[in-house]
Parts: sequence; structure tokens; C-alpha cells
Amino acid sequence: MNFKASVIAEFLKGEIVGNPDAEVNNVSKIEDGQPGTIAFLGNPKYEKYVYETRATILLVNKDFKPEKEISPTLIKVDNAYESFASLLELYQQGKPQKTGIRPLSSIDESVKIGENVYVGEYSVIEQGAKIGNNVKIYPQVYIGDGVEIGEGSILYPGVKVYEGCKIGRNCVFHSGTIIGADGFGFAPSANNDYKKIPQIGIVIIEDFVEIGANCCVDRATMGATIIRKGVKLDNLIQVAHNVEIGENTVMAAQTGIAGSAKIGKNNMFGGQVAINGHIKIGDNVKIGAQSGVLSDVKDGEMLQGSSAIPFKNFWKSHVIFTKLPEMRQQLNQLEREFKDLKKSMP
Amino acid sequence: MNFKASVIAEFLKGEIVGNPDAEVNNVSKIEDGQPGTIAFLGNPKYEKYVYETRATILLVNKDFKPEKEISPTLIKVDNAYESFASLLELYQQGKPQKTGIRPLSSIDESVKIGENVYVGEYSVIEQGAKIGNNVKIYPQVYIGDGVEIGEGSILYPGVKVYEGCKIGRNCVFHSGTIIGADGFGFAPSANNDYKKIPQIGIVIIEDFVEIGANCCVDRATMGATIIRKGVKLDNLIQVAHNVEIGENTVMAAQTGIAGSAKIGKNNMFGGQVAINGHIKIGDNVKIGAQSGVLSDVKDGEMLQGSSAIPFKNFWKSHVIFTKLPEMRQQLNQLEREFKDLKKSMP
Amino acid sequence: MNFKASVIAEFLKGEIVGNPDAEVNNVSKIEDGQPGTIAFLGNPKYEKYVYETRATILLVNKDFKPEKEISPTLIKVDNAYESFASLLELYQQGKPQKTGIRPLSSIDESVKIGENVYVGEYSVIEQGAKIGNNVKIYPQVYIGDGVEIGEGSILYPGVKVYEGCKIGRNCVFHSGTIIGADGFGFAPSANNDYKKIPQIGIVIIEDFVEIGANCCVDRATMGATIIRKGVKLDNLIQVAHNVEIGENTVMAAQTGIAGSAKIGKNNMFGGQVAINGHIKIGDNVKIGAQSGVLSDVKDGEMLQGSSAIPFKNFWKSHVIFTKLPEMRQQLNQLEREFKDLKKSMP
Repeated sequence: MNFKASVIAEFLKGEIVGNPDAEVNNVSKIEDGQPGTIAFLGNPKYEKYVYETRATILLVNKDFKPEKEISPTLIKVDNAYESFASLLELYQQGKPQKTGIRPLSSIDESVKIGENVYVGEYSVIEQGAKIGNNVKIYPQVYIGDGVEIGEGSILYPGVKVYEGCKIGRNCVFHSGTIIGADGFGFAPSANNDYKKIPQIGIVIIEDFVEIGANCCVDRATMGATIIRKGVKLDNLIQVAHNVEIGENTVMAAQTGIAGSAKIGKNNMFGGQVAINGHIKIGDNVKIGAQSGVLSDVKDGEMLQGSSAIPFKNFWKSHVIFTKLPEMRQQLNQLEREFKDLKKSMP
Repeated sequence: MNFKASVIAEFLKGEIVGNPDAEVNNVSKIEDGQPGTIAFLGNPKYEKYVYETRATILLVNKDFKPEKEISPTLIKVDNAYESFASLLELYQQGKPQKTGIRPLSSIDESVKIGENVYVGEYSVIEQGAKIGNNVKIYPQVYIGDGVEIGEGSILYPGVKVYEGCKIGRNCVFHSGTIIGADGFGFAPSANNDYKKIPQIGIVIIEDFVEIGANCCVDRATMGATIIRKGVKLDNLIQVAHNVEIGENTVMAAQTGIAGSAKIGKNNMFGGQVAINGHIKIGDNVKIGAQSGVLSDVKDGEMLQGSSAIPFKNFWKSHVIFTKLPEMRQQLNQLEREFKDLKKSMP
Repeated sequence: MNFKASVIAEFLKGEIVGNPDAEVNNVSKIEDGQPGTIAFLGNPKYEKYVYETRATILLVNKDFKPEKEISPTLIKVDNAYESFASLLELYQQGKPQKTGIRPLSSIDESVKIGENVYVGEYSVIEQGAKIGNNVKIYPQVYIGDGVEIGEGSILYPGVKVYEGCKIGRNCVFHSGTIIGADGFGFAPSANNDYKKIPQIGIVIIEDFVEIGANCCVDRATMGATIIRKGVKLDNLIQVAHNVEIGENTVMAAQTGIAGSAKIGKNNMFGGQVAINGHIKIGDNVKIGAQSGVLSDVKDGEMLQGSSAIPFKNFWKSHVIFTKLPEMRQQLNQLEREFKDLKKSMP
């Protein structure tokens, strides 16, 4: 299906520079744009592609002024990245959607299911669970006893939610993610072995949370492990028992949060970060990839390293680390010269 | 259901200080204890909450003496933490249990199944497998050809056990854990590609082993990857082919053990630790989070860092690392002064 | 079933030294070889076991000359390791194979399935998918809309492939691996929350790729995440959206590649490595375990550390890191002596 520049500009409330009748039927990245596609210029680093791209239409920010002649039709908008995302969304919504309760699923008769719900093949929904309107449960998902899932949430194939956990509205969990497995709680006993501490708490996940593939969010020992509204987790992330993650915090892949850590809001964690148990991380904190955080962090701090220190300090120290052999040589040389001098003195 | 302090004290063989008729119907953490709940004081750091908690009953160690007046009824026991764990266990055992072989499962007719076994929906048990008494196999589990699972073990939804692996008694495997996938074995060939080495060994897991969610324990090339009695693994842990992990060793999340490493008993590994292949780690070893261990480790060592060195040495060096800019400045300053002095000399 | 040394030697085109009628019925490692088994000497470090092993037959390289008397019959071949791998393969091929489309699977009527395909219980194959000849799909696998899987590929229990992804020939994916989940793409909006960028690209995996258990390969935002021919990934690896991994590159467990990184061919990455987004790694690169790579890497480089620097430099600096306390003491001592000297001068 083809769309004219004029139609797209109207949808995005943008301004056309060029041919309003230019037509596209797909999207592309600016650096490999093909005729018949629409692309966008987000990062200024990519500006050179504006003059090379073969895309037919280009979304740009309102203040963009080309320095040379260009071939695509421009549509100028407030935020080219966001506008492009809206188009992608439109594109995706146009695809056929999964619907209906498949007969090859197993749903306990006590389960309450809202309207317009999809339950895929070989999914299991156990006793007393409540599934909100417009929820999509793909095949091979497990929903334990008494689990609640809010309106519009999507659980991709193979997600498992253990009993009693509460999921908010408009959440997305990708395949292989496990919500509510037992926290890692064992009491050492006299003869070096361990006695399991039953984990009788739950997991509470608020609205608009997206969790990637193969993550683990453990249930609390008592009370709840809590993931607040708008949190975004990448893949293979570990969230231990009784952790709390504040609103709109985002974490890159393979990060791990140890038990009972309290993480503030609007934080950004890089990949493979480790957060110690029982500590408190403030708001608007940034933690670089592979860092290990051992103790409390104040609002707005930027940390790097294992164990982590302020970002700038880390990099100053790291540069010197890479030159330690020269520095030791300098020290040894100075020491020798000093001794020589001393010897030579009367 | 309500329980009186007197009944709980009798069950725990504890001594009541306060009202023996005080009643509770749930458990809580001391720091957010509510009326009608029982909490415990384990960590002395939490003692201040003894004087603030609204919990009705509090478990404490025998030797605990309050410094001020307190409101909850105390039950004094030998080990408050362990006693509390016993109560949690009792609480959990009171919940309805899954039972029976569900008709929506697929069990080969050659499979030997013990008494009182639960097999959930869409689980598959292949030819020649043996399932002991009281085993619980939740939905969507895969049990390969000839697998043996000992009495009382629990496999949560979605666990996969490849053919031939042997699981002991009273083990617990959480969702998404994969036992017995092929070890990572490839022989380089002349034209830069790799020839797969078939992995024809198995995995042996002894009794009382608990493995968290989304872990991987690879089968051996030949022989067996072995996890000894009482080992506890957190989530997202990698155990490569031909590894052996000794009794009662515990590992935190996202740790990885490379091929053929031999790990001793009673060890404690932090999260995101990496253990090199083909090395030998002794007993009673502690390895801090994010450490990387390249070579053999003796009994009782405590290591930190990547690559790891003795714990104390690491922290002494790390402190200086954070001050390297000042140290270099000090060195440069000294050098300058030395040169000035030399110049000024006759 | 027993095999004579003469038969094995003929199959491997090897030369017998010893008893051509020696018989074996199983394989073993040289260090724990038992009578009736065949083992091999690969790594010269294991040579001492040649004189101790109880294995009946031993594969060795053509140029191997025993220094003492030995008991096993030798078969001399060009490459003992590769020959042994061929035997293991033969051994494995002799096992019963899974076959047939199980009635307890769910396959959309539009799906095109080749000859001699196995589809296990509770697997789902969605609309428009194409499955090549000799493909093995174990139980509980999910194959999304329009997915293509080339001849001879194997998907172990519980693998999930999201819609539209293309898998080549002779690939192997182990249990729990997720192909084509959404990339981690969110645009920050004004009020600190995030707007999801729809991920409308796919994953393309070429021929002879093996991926371990519980890995994640995300779909591209647009275009494709690409894994080239012959790549081997261990377990729990993260491959983000729009990454490209070149031919025959191998990565050890728990490594993570951030978005849009381009990785060359014939690389070897250790475990728990982190690769930054949007960077370019050349060919024949080696990256040590737990390293973090922030910027482009040239062909043939060997890196270590977080952030990574050339291998040799890292180890030189690391040795000094472990001795920083002594170095600071040396500096302080020198400074003191210098000041004393200065003071003592007229």
C-alpha cells in the first residue's frame, strides 16, 4: 500500500519541502534508503547521508537546513525520531493481530478473562488468575495461580509467571522471561549445608513496563519485589528478591540487581552492571557498563568501574592505569638518580 | 487462620516474654510489621525496629535483651532466623499443592513413574525416563530420553532436561533452566571454520541441589558434568561441560564457570564471577562479585578483581587506583624539584 | 557393539601400532580411560596419561613417539582430535533419532514442510512458515509467522523464533534461545518516560551457525540483525538489534553485543565480554574474558580489560596494579628522603 508525502505530512503535522505526491510503501534507515521508502535524520552524525540516500521521503527536524541540493522530499517535523517512531507504530498496527482463545490452551474454569483476549496454543492459566481486556498471551506461556494481568499487556511465547504475581497494564514481556521464581534465600546450618528460606512474597510490576527476553525477576521473601511504572529492562537481566526499581529507570542487557537493593527513578544502567544487595541508589543516576556498585549512590551521580567511582575519576585513573609501566619506570629512574646524587655528595 | 503466641512458642520450643494469647495470621518483615503479623530479629543492624515495629509477635534469639520498653510479644528461640524459616515453611506447606498426571501431558509408555507424582499440562517425558515418588513436574517441562529424576524433586514450568541426565532427590530447578544442552566444543579446521565435537556425556546432579531460573548446565563431552549434593545456584548461571561443583557451594546470579573447571565444596561466589576453564578451586573459597579467576585457588582463599587477587590486596590497590592522578602529580612534582635541585648544584 | 582396532583404523585412515584385534565398545577421556574404551591424546600436556591410561585403544598424532612402554594399542592419524570427533559423531549418529510430525503439535495449514522433518509435541508453527528438509523441531518450540528454517537445522526444546526471521541450513539452536525478540529501542519523551520504537526488522542467521542455550538475538529496528555462516555462540549470550557478526566468529558464554555493533570474522571472544554499540570490530580479533570494548578494533588485535587495551599492555599494567601499595610507599619514601636532603643542604 502506497502513501503520499502529503498524507504522511498531514498525519505528522509536518511541512513538505519538495514533491507532495512522492509515494512510499516501506521504511528504511537513511544510510541504506531505497527508492519507495521513507527514512529519517535523527543523529546529526548521519547528516552526510541526507545527500546520498536514495530514500524517496526524509523526515527531518524543523530546524534542519540542507547545505547542498538533495533528492528526497523532506517532511519537517518537531522531532523527526518521534515522528518516525509513530510511523513505525502505524506500520506495525497494520499487521494482522493474533486473537481469540485457542482451544489448544489450558485455562482453569475459575479464571476471569476480559474482552478481546488472545491466548495462544499450549499456554496454561491456573486457578483464580485474572486477565484484563486486550491482553495477548502468546503460545507456551504459564500463568500461575491467582496471577493478575492488567489491560493491554503482552506476554510473548514461553513467558512464565509464578503464582500470585501482579502485572500492570500495557506491559510487554519477551520470550523466556521468568517472573516470580523463588528468591535466592538460604540459611546456613551447622553442618555446612543450607536450609531453604521459603519465598512467600510476590512480584508487583506496574504499568507500561517492558522486560526483554530471558530475564528473571524473583519473588520477595516476604512482601513484594516491585518494578515501577515505565521501567524498561533489556534481555538477560537479573532482579533479585525484594528489589525495588523506580519509575522510568532503564537497564541494558545482562545487568544484575542483588537482593533488597532499592533503585530510584529515571536511572540509566549500562550492560553487565552489578548492584550490591541492600543498598539504595538515588534518582537520575547513570552507571556505565560492567560497573559494580557496592554502596549507596546519591541522586544524579554518574559512576564507572568495579567497584564504581565517579565517572570522571574513573577515566582519569584508567588512563594512568594504562601507563603504569611508564610511571613505575619514571619512579625507579628518579630513585636511582637521587641515590646517585646522594652518593656523589660529600 | 489465627495462631496464638503460645502455640507458636510450643512449635518452635521457644520461651514467651509478653502475652501468650497474642494472635497472628500472617508474617512480615520487622521493618514493616503490621498488627496481626509475626516478624523476627535476625541481623543486629535491625535492632532499632524492635522498638518501632507494629508486628504483634517477634521472634528473637535467646540472648536478646531489649534496651527499652517494647510492644510486641517476644518468642525467644535458639536461632530466630531458622525458626522463622520453619514458620514460613509451615505456611507454605499449608497452601494447596499441585497433584496428578494431567491428561494434557505427553508421557511415553515406557516411562516409569513413582507414586504421588505431579505432571503438568504440555510437559513431555520421553522414552525410558524414570520419575521418582513425589516428584513435581510443572507445565511445559521437557524430560529427555532416559532421564532419571529422584524422589521429591521439583521442576518448575519450562525446565528442559536433555536425554540421559541424572537428577538426584529433593532438587529444585526453576523455570527456564536448561540441563544437558551440548557443551561448547568445536575443533578449528583448516579453512577457519569449526567442526562440532559431539557432546556424548551427561549431567549428574546430586541430592538437595537448587538451581534458579534461566541457568544452563551443559552436558559433558564425555563422562559427566557434576553438581554435588547441596549446591545452590542463583539465576542465569552458566556451568560449562565437564565442570564439577563440590558440595554446598553457593553461587550468586550470572556467574559463569568455563569448561572442565573443578570447584571445591563450601565455596561462596558473588554475582557475575567468571571462572577459567581447566582450573581447580579449593574448598571454603570466597570470590567477590565480578571477579575473574584465571588459575588454581587454594582452600580458604578470598579473592577479588579481574583477574582476581587476594581480597585485601585488591582493596589496597583499588584505593590507590582511585588516587592515581594525585600520585602521578606527586611523582611529577618530585621529579621537577629534583631536577631543579640538581641544576642549582654546582 | 564392539569395534576392532583394525576397523577403526581403516575408517580413520590411520596406522595401527599394537594389536589390530583389540576391541572397544565405548569412548573415554585419556585420564580416566577404562578397558574396552578408545581415548585420544590431543593436548601434549596430557602425555603422561599415555603411560597410565587403561583405555584399550589410543588415537595419537602421526608424529607421536612414546618415551616408554605403553599398554594400549595406538592408532596414528593426521589429527587425533579431529579423528576422535569423527568417531564421536559416528557414535551419536548410531543413536535412535526423533522423527515424524507429532499429532500433539500445532502447525498452521499454510506452513510448508519439507521431507523427513521432526516436529515434537506442543510445538507451534505459525502461518506462512517454511521448514526445510530434515529439520528437527523438538517439543515446545515456537516458530512465528513467516519464519524460514533451512535444511537440516535443529531447534531443541523450547526455542522461540519470532515472526519473519530467516534461519539458514544446518544450524543448531539449544533450548531456551530466543531469536527475534524486540530490540531495546525507546525514545525519551518530555516527561521522563519512554516511547517504544517499534522493531520492524528481522534476524537473519546464515548456515552452520550454532547457538547455545538461553541466548537472545534481537530483531533489528529496521533491516536485519545478521549472524553469518559458521558463527558459534555459547550459552546466555546477548546479541542486540542490528548487530552483525562475521563468519566463523566464536563467543564464550554470557558475552553481550550492544546495538548496531559490527563484528568481523574469525574472532574469538572470551566469556562475559561486553561490546559497545555502534562500533566496528575487525577480523581475527581476540578479546579476553570480562573485557569491555568501547571503540573500534583493528584486524588481528588482542585486547583485555574493562575498558579494553592491548593484551600485553593490560597484563603489564595489571601486575603493577597488584603492587600499587609498594609503589606508593616507594614514592613517599623517596619524597621524604628528598625533603630531608633539601633541608640538610645549605
